[in-house]
Amino acid sequence: MQEHSHLDVGDADPPPGTARPGGRTARNREAVLDAALGLLAEHGYAATCVQDIATRSGVAASTIYRRWGNRDGVILDLAGTLVAEPVGALPDTGDLERDLTLLGRVILDVMSNPRDGVVQSTLVAAGVHSPTARRTLAQIINRRVEDTKIIAERAVERGDVPADTDAGKVINTLAAPIYHRWYILGEEPTDDELAGFARVAAHAARDALLT
Amino acid sequence: MQEHSHLDVGDADPPPGTARPGGRTARNREAVLDAALGLLAEHGYAATCVQDIATRSGVAASTIYRRWGNRDGVILDLAGTLVAEPVGALPDTGDLERDLTLLGRVILDVMSNPRDGVVQSTLVAAGVHSPTARRTLAQIINRRVEDTKIIAERAVERGDVPADTDAGKVINTLAAPIYHRWYILGEEPTDDELAGFARVAAHAARDALLT
Repeated sequence: MQEHSHLDVGDADPPPGTARPGGRTARNREAVLDAALGLLAEHGYAATCVQDIATRSGVAASTIYRRWGNRDGVILDLAGTLVAEPVGALPDTGDLERDLTLLGRVILDVMSNPRDGVVQSTLVAAGVHSPTARRTLAQIINRRVEDTKIIAERAVERGDVPADTDAGKVINTLAAPIYHRWYILGEEPTDDELAGFARVAAHAARDALLT
Repeated sequence: MQEHSHLDVGDADPPPGTARPGGRTARNREAVLDAALGLLAEHGYAATCVQDIATRSGVAASTIYRRWGNRDGVILDLAGTLVAEPVGALPDTGDLERDLTLLGRVILDVMSNPRDGVVQSTLVAAGVHSPTARRTLAQIINRRVEDTKIIAERAVERGDVPADTDAGKVINTLAAPIYHRWYILGEEPTDDELAGFARVAAHAARDALLT
């Protein structure tokens, strides 16, 4: 088995008429999504096919085709489990620039971890040609922006930035150069560079450019 | 035929021993790259195969396999022709923020045009799993950054930003949120948003954050 923890797949929308929610259907879904994640992490998108997912999960390929349609259906379901997840503990140092520097590291950790990062990069690749994949990716990113807006909102409460600051713009001003470096230029920003991105975002917020 | 202009494929590295450079070999290359570009633009990456390139270009599939290896080899060769190309005329209004706003429109126009944009998005998708595609994409982007640095360099000469301003950082501070919006969130920034990105970059440069 792969080393990732099992997915909490909840009991999201079983097809109508499905027997025993929480029973075999739910167990099958968990096994299929776990297998797909492991294969994506180890072999990448192109080398992950329904037959391999079937072999690894112990769920029949015919069942996978019937329920998910194809490989992309499985990956989109897997991605949906990420949308539903809150981010972890957020920095709260009392200083916007320092908080944003630490948040930059959290964003990078997500991109490079063997679970979220793999699903996310798969969606970036698929999103270029698939509107569904792009929508799912945007949902994941926008959900994370929502969850991290508190960092900018606290700066407003402290009076460190103008009251009409758009917290989402602050987060995106930090996140955009990180995504650009990772997915477009294929490089990991250094700690110095992360600090530079945070400085630009905090400075722009303070000077009322992100309202 | 597709409506794109013919590619200037130059006479970049014909394989050793190739007969008559500028002759049939060069004509074949132009036909193959033209065909690949047209197919990518019309049908996308997944639906563009060597056999279709062969049919459209009139060059035998066996010749394409022998010279380029596979579809990705053709696409990387096509991408290489973009690396070699200079960008067009650049804005020069005498004001950094206004120049950057206009440059943002130039960057967006490249992303959405039927030639460069198609090759670039194909490389973004392939780059997630292919180091070669990612390197080629980074080459294209970095070359364009080099070509547009003059905008920030002029601001230094005018004394509008500190003398030790890093012109590449200024361009990337503008470009990163545009790429993030287009390729990650799948949205086209509005004119207002482009102006906002330019304002943040120009302001950061003026306040010595991009040295």
